[in-house]
Amino acid sequence: MTLMIRGATLITHEESYRADVLCADGVIKAIGTDLDLPNGCEILDGSGQYLMPGGIDPHTHMQLPFMGTVASEDFYSGTAAGLAGGTTSIIDFVIPNPQQSLLEAFHQWRGWAEKSASDYGFHVAITWWSERVREEMGELVSQHGVNSFKHFMAYKNAIMAADDTLVASFERCLELGAVPTVHAENGELVYHLQRKLLAQGITGPEAHPLSRPSQVEGEAASRAIRIAETLGTPVYLVHVSTREALDEIAYARAKGQPVYGEVLAGHLLLDDSVYHHPDWQTAAGYVMSPPFRPRKDGHQEALWGGLQSGNLHTTATDHCCFCAEQKAAGRDDFSRIPNGTAGIEDRMAVLWDEGVNSGKLSMQDFVALTSTNTAKIFNLFPRKGALRVGADADLVLWDPKGTRTISAATHHHQVDFNIFEGKTVRGIPSHTISQGKLVWANGDLRAERGAGRYIERPAYPAVFDLLSKRAEHQRPVAVKR
Amino acid sequence: MTLMIRGATLITHEESYRADVLCADGVIKAIGTDLDLPNGCEILDGSGQYLMPGGIDPHTHMQLPFMGTVASEDFYSGTAAGLAGGTTSIIDFVIPNPQQSLLEAFHQWRGWAEKSASDYGFHVAITWWSERVREEMGELVSQHGVNSFKHFMAYKNAIMAADDTLVASFERCLELGAVPTVHAENGELVYHLQRKLLAQGITGPEAHPLSRPSQVEGEAASRAIRIAETLGTPVYLVHVSTREALDEIAYARAKGQPVYGEVLAGHLLLDDSVYHHPDWQTAAGYVMSPPFRPRKDGHQEALWGGLQSGNLHTTATDHCCFCAEQKAAGRDDFSRIPNGTAGIEDRMAVLWDEGVNSGKLSMQDFVALTSTNTAKIFNLFPRKGALRVGADADLVLWDPKGTRTISAATHHHQVDFNIFEGKTVRGIPSHTISQGKLVWANGDLRAERGAGRYIERPAYPAVFDLLSKRAEHQRPVAVKR
Amino acid sequence: MTLMIRGATLITHEESYRADVLCADGVIKAIGTDLDLPNGCEILDGSGQYLMPGGIDPHTHMQLPFMGTVASEDFYSGTAAGLAGGTTSIIDFVIPNPQQSLLEAFHQWRGWAEKSASDYGFHVAITWWSERVREEMGELVSQHGVNSFKHFMAYKNAIMAADDTLVASFERCLELGAVPTVHAENGELVYHLQRKLLAQGITGPEAHPLSRPSQVEGEAASRAIRIAETLGTPVYLVHVSTREALDEIAYARAKGQPVYGEVLAGHLLLDDSVYHHPDWQTAAGYVMSPPFRPRKDGHQEALWGGLQSGNLHTTATDHCCFCAEQKAAGRDDFSRIPNGTAGIEDRMAVLWDEGVNSGKLSMQDFVALTSTNTAKIFNLFPRKGALRVGADADLVLWDPKGTRTISAATHHHQVDFNIFEGKTVRGIPSHTISQGKLVWANGDLRAERGAGRYIERPAYPAVFDLLSKRAEHQRPVAVKR
Amino acid sequence: MTLMIRGATLITHEESYRADVLCADGVIKAIGTDLDLPNGCEILDGSGQYLMPGGIDPHTHMQLPFMGTVASEDFYSGTAAGLAGGTTSIIDFVIPNPQQSLLEAFHQWRGWAEKSASDYGFHVAITWWSERVREEMGELVSQHGVNSFKHFMAYKNAIMAADDTLVASFERCLELGAVPTVHAENGELVYHLQRKLLAQGITGPEAHPLSRPSQVEGEAASRAIRIAETLGTPVYLVHVSTREALDEIAYARAKGQPVYGEVLAGHLLLDDSVYHHPDWQTAAGYVMSPPFRPRKDGHQEALWGGLQSGNLHTTATDHCCFCAEQKAAGRDDFSRIPNGTAGIEDRMAVLWDEGVNSGKLSMQDFVALTSTNTAKIFNLFPRKGALRVGADADLVLWDPKGTRTISAATHHHQVDFNIFEGKTVRGIPSHTISQGKLVWANGDLRAERGAGRYIERPAYPAVFDLLSKRAEHQRPVAVKR
Repeated sequence: MTLMIRGATLITHEESYRADVLCADGVIKAIGTDLDLPNGCEILDGSGQYLMPGGIDPHTHMQLPFMGTVASEDFYSGTAAGLAGGTTSIIDFVIPNPQQSLLEAFHQWRGWAEKSASDYGFHVAITWWSERVREEMGELVSQHGVNSFKHFMAYKNAIMAADDTLVASFERCLELGAVPTVHAENGELVYHLQRKLLAQGITGPEAHPLSRPSQVEGEAASRAIRIAETLGTPVYLVHVSTREALDEIAYARAKGQPVYGEVLAGHLLLDDSVYHHPDWQTAAGYVMSPPFRPRKDGHQEALWGGLQSGNLHTTATDHCCFCAEQKAAGRDDFSRIPNGTAGIEDRMAVLWDEGVNSGKLSMQDFVALTSTNTAKIFNLFPRKGALRVGADADLVLWDPKGTRTISAATHHHQVDFNIFEGKTVRGIPSHTISQGKLVWANGDLRAERGAGRYIERPAYPAVFDLLSKRAEHQRPVAVKR
Repeated sequence: MTLMIRGATLITHEESYRADVLCADGVIKAIGTDLDLPNGCEILDGSGQYLMPGGIDPHTHMQLPFMGTVASEDFYSGTAAGLAGGTTSIIDFVIPNPQQSLLEAFHQWRGWAEKSASDYGFHVAITWWSERVREEMGELVSQHGVNSFKHFMAYKNAIMAADDTLVASFERCLELGAVPTVHAENGELVYHLQRKLLAQGITGPEAHPLSRPSQVEGEAASRAIRIAETLGTPVYLVHVSTREALDEIAYARAKGQPVYGEVLAGHLLLDDSVYHHPDWQTAAGYVMSPPFRPRKDGHQEALWGGLQSGNLHTTATDHCCFCAEQKAAGRDDFSRIPNGTAGIEDRMAVLWDEGVNSGKLSMQDFVALTSTNTAKIFNLFPRKGALRVGADADLVLWDPKGTRTISAATHHHQVDFNIFEGKTVRGIPSHTISQGKLVWANGDLRAERGAGRYIERPAYPAVFDLLSKRAEHQRPVAVKR
Repeated sequence: MTLMIRGATLITHEESYRADVLCADGVIKAIGTDLDLPNGCEILDGSGQYLMPGGIDPHTHMQLPFMGTVASEDFYSGTAAGLAGGTTSIIDFVIPNPQQSLLEAFHQWRGWAEKSASDYGFHVAITWWSERVREEMGELVSQHGVNSFKHFMAYKNAIMAADDTLVASFERCLELGAVPTVHAENGELVYHLQRKLLAQGITGPEAHPLSRPSQVEGEAASRAIRIAETLGTPVYLVHVSTREALDEIAYARAKGQPVYGEVLAGHLLLDDSVYHHPDWQTAAGYVMSPPFRPRKDGHQEALWGGLQSGNLHTTATDHCCFCAEQKAAGRDDFSRIPNGTAGIEDRMAVLWDEGVNSGKLSMQDFVALTSTNTAKIFNLFPRKGALRVGADADLVLWDPKGTRTISAATHHHQVDFNIFEGKTVRGIPSHTISQGKLVWANGDLRAERGAGRYIERPAYPAVFDLLSKRAEHQRPVAVKR
Repeated sequence: MTLMIRGATLITHEESYRADVLCADGVIKAIGTDLDLPNGCEILDGSGQYLMPGGIDPHTHMQLPFMGTVASEDFYSGTAAGLAGGTTSIIDFVIPNPQQSLLEAFHQWRGWAEKSASDYGFHVAITWWSERVREEMGELVSQHGVNSFKHFMAYKNAIMAADDTLVASFERCLELGAVPTVHAENGELVYHLQRKLLAQGITGPEAHPLSRPSQVEGEAASRAIRIAETLGTPVYLVHVSTREALDEIAYARAKGQPVYGEVLAGHLLLDDSVYHHPDWQTAAGYVMSPPFRPRKDGHQEALWGGLQSGNLHTTATDHCCFCAEQKAAGRDDFSRIPNGTAGIEDRMAVLWDEGVNSGKLSMQDFVALTSTNTAKIFNLFPRKGALRVGADADLVLWDPKGTRTISAATHHHQVDFNIFEGKTVRGIPSHTISQGKLVWANGDLRAERGAGRYIERPAYPAVFDLLSKRAEHQRPVAVKR
């Protein structure tokens, strides 16, 4: 089965040029201007469109058991929605319960994910610490293609990792060549504010952002970054939503520390006024952590600046769907509203519409921020994130003139709410190609249950070379006395 | 008993002018240019000299039980040395053992301090948390003139306060109108690095700074400041020694947060090369926490800038003396070297010599940084820190041409080591007046055992007015649905 | 003629306390709690109110000849309006034409100002350079009580000072002990943008802010500050209106450079949306330079932070009135709209209402920012800006519960427009005392034409001591070869 | 003529992998692991070595007429030395005299450069302004392959461009799709300080850095960047040498402005102590502008951080040679010492040794900073700066174990001084390939006079797309009234 895309302008993270692309056996076989057409080859006309590496969403939670319920989007429906939006790979999260075996949890998630329509991988969360956790981290890296571990600095009394766990786990990551990642919010402060607001009788969704003010994220970002600095590890911050956290990243990077930041489409566009919506259900629909941020403090402008300046590196969704009836669990107590919002279908179009159309981002930036940078950081490059002969034929054909009005009524997400409801975007994926096959064609979603593969990610992304040289160079020496 | 100082130039934190000053009954009775001389009044000729408020050292540890030994300097010898250096008040620290009653510890320290030669007060440390701690904080404020509580973010497995304690105690401070203060170093990281360095066989004093790199302080500063921001309390950082911590302070202050920073004379002048001294005993003599900092990273320049720009507010010594035989406890393990260095006699002269003589600081800055700012922050102003009628007659007559070569051989500290050994300063206290009496006169130390008084510090320094208005203005409101 | 204010709470830049104040002979004769009442002494009941030093407005332009017309507010009406608002002194500007003698211009302005109702002084602008300018600067300082010179970095082809003039004049200021001040906007860029916008057919007031974007101010601020740094002078930036300029100030101050910043009440409150008012005349009414700034970039928040953190020091108005028919000169060309807005009557109430009532500023900050800091920087302290025996009896009695709705219909400004139209403030001056006399009493304005005095300001404010020590300390030395 | 490099590890700006490379007809014909060997193909064994794109030096001045003399290094000798150091292309500067035709000067330089041994291009300096200059800029871009113009903000009374010229020329660059570049030092301040130092009798090389303190560069950087911001152009700062300029770049970039910074090898390593060398001739040998910077202010550390964080983009040499007898012209007046130092042969090895060996930079960073980024910014990519089929076969084979001790006695520069004299570097070019030919092989320099080609650089590098979208998006609109 072969596929030729003809006449499109290819966009990579650093270039754009006209060429044809031939896909076969799931990979890119040829790129050129006068390619021979194999027998029986399907042809896709890309005239007037852009051909780019398929999106990678490094932050999703399909069918996640969380806060007493399970996310409504499963691995099939979620990855299918991704394909409809131009995203051809995800990295989801294995989140063991405290005291649970990491491997057990990993296999649980692997089972759930077999139905995926696109390729996928897993970060594994470190929600507790013990010698066994330490050992299983090693096995996950060496045997199961995991090269990143997640740490929740929030969610006290649940999955929060305190400083001793962070230190132990980051150090272990360094030994293994794995990237530590963090959800940066100070869980003690969040817990304190939640209790206080409830005691004051502020129980609705409007209390959600008040319980997680921006400095709570800035604090945790500073802490995680400085633990990484001290131990000599890289560190990746998921869903950076505040000027404060970004400033901490920029501060560290200016001194040469390898810190990476991810930003969600929602945080770039929305603000905390959504939590004051007069309709409880609507307001609750926006509840996720970290929350959307006040406009007046300039977080949104700052995040765009972070993407432009290279202080932020990836975009994601934290796709985690809960329907109205699930959200209703927090009707009398905002702290019980399941945290999460959808977005995997919308991320790329929203980023193009707000970023590329306005001149905030170049098309090359767009590719880097939706695909290539993620592939590099998590060691999938150039298999993913690249338009090269030999790379996986995960592609998106982008129609810069196409428009779509985002709505829960029409989206492919398996949830009854959309945070971008009513927004019309210009620039949409006309076709998506996964493993060399057309899976989305002008509105026709041809996602195949179980077609997705688990992608092993090798340990020791390139940054570890640098860090080990640095460590060697700065090795402490005893004074002879 | 009356004393007239004639002919000096008075220096306050905002002015300088020629006047005579009459002291009687322990207070300043008159300031003017043609004052009548009471009968029997002693006269002190101040010609060519500067008359300033006596120094206040907000950070001392006299006869502290610490790391298995007791500081060699007691309240008498230490305050006497202070008088020889122009410092007429100290604020020392009550440090209860975890599980010990705060009040019990407070009375213990009060007993030890009765022999003081100069006035004194106490911060009280919060080294554990319970309902009883909460109540006793209240009693200390309302009954015993304590308006500040100290939190050690380092010293894991000993007196370290974790985030839950910090949050609870800061919140309690807010209720009481007391200022939370912090020793900002991340104790988990210090502990981890100590273990690692020892495991690598780096056991000497050179390991001390390596176990406490600058980001460890930056981290804790960020955390304490953001906890304070979240709760709406002021916060005071003791012994700021790094560019990182200072940057965190400046960042917060630029947004209007009331954060105060203290700097030690030693951190302004010395660097971490001292820990590489070939003589173990000498290197160990410099061991204190936080350690002296690398020159190449510009910490010293940055700290001076902090004093000049108003991002740092007070100067102190962390005066805590351990003799060579005490330091020897860490001969095989740097982490057992008792942490502490002397300085109460030297602080003002060193700051004058390096700060005023070079044009880094004005004389007004000098008064503010050695006395007035401390009095304001800890609510002693204008009883202390002011040249005003009615203020305590705690004064220092400063000879800008006098010189002294600092040495353990000649200092009044009860310890066998001086971190400024051999340094010659220009600008010294020729006379010190405490409670209206001459206690230091051209090298003649007339300190009187037990003459010092415990000084109660009232709750609610002015900053609390501001903070309560702010809290009122930002009070959360439930959305009517 | 004597006046006793009884029962008020006195507020200074660093304290608040209850006391009575006795004024006689134009000065404060006594402050205390049980003052004897002289015969015939008038009594003012201050119960429930605050007594503070009268405001000083360091930036006004009464009856200024500018852009082909003359400001409608003269020295009498303007200072009278100031008294109604609690402001008892102004520092206005002598602005010689290029090629005009500084002394000639100075005497012109002195003549115009004789009708002033309150005390006043003058900055003198350096609008050109020659040996004669250099000499006359000396005479102004030594003979005429001028200690500050102003430099317009904007207004190309009119009064703009280019770099060679700035360097020459700042250097001269250093010799004379005078403070260089700057209007920081890059005149080349403003000129370029004005021409460009007009060429594009954007001729209305909405073009005004577009012709002076925030980086144009940031650029000039950086330039002026670094010229001052290089030459070793202090520098004072008038009407700082942008985050960019403030960041430059903070950057320099953090390294110990004496840079002072002034902010206008209007820039703290308003934004650039005013220039889009559908009514041309209204939009034109807001035209002043620098313009009001976009809300989204956070300039207003940043400026408040600057006042709180000590990176900005004074508040002013740039009071410069042009009536609708004057503004109409720019009907077809925004660059011809006379630049200027009123505010001297409103500054203090607006700053109290927005600053003190919200907890942004303490009452002590308020006094510092409306009066004391200005007096210190321009060497009027403690004659002005202080509540002390011997200080000028320029006072304001502040009613924190009083309210006023600001309107051109009721203000005392001699102009038909008010940028704060319709704003209701809580906290107003109930009484103003100038030279010991009640000149404003609950709405009764008793300003007296010509009662104001020219106030000489001595050279060499304190900061010059610091700078000369610094210069001495860093004096270059030739290498012996 | 074909050449096969076998067995090396290829390093690009984003990857490393093993492959063979076949060069023919001056370009890379094939990259792969099992390439057929053409008949007669020369083989180069790259085992144990790294194969990288040849270096591009974007800042050289071969045989420059300057300060009354002519640089001793001509285009042949200089490019040959570059080949010996792994640098296969240069971008030199055409510097017309004020009033001289740009085209005339351009042809002059073209003539001089015909003898070059490696490929070369030209920036053209704008040293004056007129309608003719404006027109000739257009002709240079459209007819002669120039896409960048240089502006000297220093050198008053010679080639300095004042603000009006900067504004006019940057605007013209925008029209033409050319990149404005600046030498950022405030020429007024330099001139003033030179005169002052000479007047003080400080005439030796030690006066050179004193006449150009770091803020003089920070000022000009701020100015150039903000002019670019205002006009919507990119801007490239040559030889960034200070923390201040870097901070300005980082500040602008964090808001999304396309600002590029270049750093010289010398500024990364050396400090201003060289100007105090007791031997005049040695001290004078280091005289270049901007000067080497004080160590204590952390400029060097900051510049490395800039390279690591992406705030600085390219490395260069400002190669401009003057021999001892030429330098002697300033024997009595430092301001007459011809400004310039050598380095084209040393840049890459020095950067590898200090950057890569210490873990400051990865090998990918090294390629980006010595070659690829320059190619991208100046629109030579992927012809230059890339290891790709079709790219120019300009390559360097790097021996990471080879060492060299740098010395004027052995270097290939045509000058008698080397600023890195005596430094031993580990990591050197064993072979250099230019246009597919071996031109340097283990110490054998086979540079061919005149083999170098003039390389046209097309207008409109990619950043202009972004900027034109931005301009469109922010186009001002008149208010309808």
